[in-house]
Amino acid sequence: MTAPDPSGPIAILAGSGQLPVRLAEHLEREGRDHRILAIRGFVEPDIRRRAHAVVDLLDIKTIMGTLESWNPVAVTLVGAVRRPGFSALLGAYSLLRNRQEVKEVIARGDDQVLRGAVRLLEDHGHRVVGAHELAPGLLAAPDIGTRLAPCEDDRLAIGVGLDLLGALSAFDIGQAAVVAHRRVIAVEGPEGTDRMLRRVARLRRSWRFAPVRREGGVLVKAAKRGQDLRVDMPAIGPRTVEEAARAGLAGIAIGAGSTLLLDEAASLAAADRLGLFLTVVDLPWMEAARG
Amino acid sequence: MTAPDPSGPIAILAGSGQLPVRLAEHLEREGRDHRILAIRGFVEPDIRRRAHAVVDLLDIKTIMGTLESWNPVAVTLVGAVRRPGFSALLGAYSLLRNRQEVKEVIARGDDQVLRGAVRLLEDHGHRVVGAHELAPGLLAAPDIGTRLAPCEDDRLAIGVGLDLLGALSAFDIGQAAVVAHRRVIAVEGPEGTDRMLRRVARLRRSWRFAPVRREGGVLVKAAKRGQDLRVDMPAIGPRTVEEAARAGLAGIAIGAGSTLLLDEAASLAAADRLGLFLTVVDLPWMEAARG
Repeated sequence: MTAPDPSGPIAILAGSGQLPVRLAEHLEREGRDHRILAIRGFVEPDIRRRAHAVVDLLDIKTIMGTLESWNPVAVTLVGAVRRPGFSALLGAYSLLRNRQEVKEVIARGDDQVLRGAVRLLEDHGHRVVGAHELAPGLLAAPDIGTRLAPCEDDRLAIGVGLDLLGALSAFDIGQAAVVAHRRVIAVEGPEGTDRMLRRVARLRRSWRFAPVRREGGVLVKAAKRGQDLRVDMPAIGPRTVEEAARAGLAGIAIGAGSTLLLDEAASLAAADRLGLFLTVVDLPWMEAARG
Repeated sequence: MTAPDPSGPIAILAGSGQLPVRLAEHLEREGRDHRILAIRGFVEPDIRRRAHAVVDLLDIKTIMGTLESWNPVAVTLVGAVRRPGFSALLGAYSLLRNRQEVKEVIARGDDQVLRGAVRLLEDHGHRVVGAHELAPGLLAAPDIGTRLAPCEDDRLAIGVGLDLLGALSAFDIGQAAVVAHRRVIAVEGPEGTDRMLRRVARLRRSWRFAPVRREGGVLVKAAKRGQDLRVDMPAIGPRTVEEAARAGLAGIAIGAGSTLLLDEAASLAAADRLGLFLTVVDLPWMEAARG
């Protein structure tokens, strides 16, 4: 077993999306030594080019062996990995741990699988940190401002969305919902935010009498109560803003201190260009977690 | 204003799906006088042919006028009406009620809109009843049996699904969810159960390493805590069973005493043919409602 080496690199276990790219850029700018372990089939071309090694998600032995050889000061898991089939996962993790225990963990869902991965890394002597600990600048600042701000109706929708996400914290389901007026239009499942927004757009097109352009509604996205921010931290970026506009939403509300805003300048510019607000809201449960 | 006429017909305000057809067939078999007010663009061809009048969903004046002329012993609202745009609804209902109040009702969602419709009918002197009161045979019997029964893993999934639906009762969102192992794969939104199941099928196809055939999981469908069963009562039928099979599910669990099983024989036959279980489960909150 290894122990974190203070002079070792930061190891980025990289899945899909823009976060691994942004994090690598950030560390590069700061001149911090880092190595990227890219998960085959998930990473963007950008990251694949920068990667020091490419592995299969289920090849736990190679993942662990590579990390051990790097002897990193910290490991961070960034970017999404769409979940493979239950039995494939079970097979892979079973190489390392008690089969029944692994089965239990996997059955509970992504959250638990990712927490299982964190535990597994920690069992192997690694220090696991969240991307926001390495690059606090990726967190949405509480005072970001778009040209537009939520109106009272939007604020009600945001309240409903936060209540809903709070109520869903106990379940391994998405970190986002769309609320129009006080009605929940969609709850994010494993398909992710972008596909949920496209669902809302389709749904609205299918409603009669409604030539959907700007029907209103808010995308509310936030970390759950009790969420381990070292894995699967909620994130939005310019593409989220564009999909929200296509779904006819009035704006986006994200949880303070626990949601990454990738490419802040581009996201705010997209919001202003498309006439959406983007706002950062306090999460009641994050306050409690801090105290 | 009218008052229910004991010798009057039963008025069926019919939306989409099979329920209006099944209810009309049932009343016909029993020789009970009934008239169908079909909502244009929503009803199945079967019902359109039988309809005594066809109206626009938003033409509240004609709907009310027609019902008044029929002087029915009871009115029942059956079948889905996909919700039109907020402003169209607002315009239509505003003809009759205080604009701000209507706005409040509509903002709260489908449940509230339908409850608003019930109140509106009652304000006009009508007695509003649920389809299950007119045709108790449409309710799933507690002891229906398919060849297959849920295994322990399925029972855990059903438990998670019921917990989730219970937690969502306060929100105007779907009456169904898909749970695989202990993980929530999808929560039904306004798109309805069939489209949610197709989403699950697509999602599973998109997961790597998973040549999805029978990945398992359960569709859990039940009335919410406090749901007015006179409107939007949960219902399944043979098509639901087929979509569940396509989504790779192991079976379907529906709430006892509050879920309609349309075409029971065909539904059970489809389940047996496709290798799914279909089971009726007690809802903790229905017990309380009865007490």
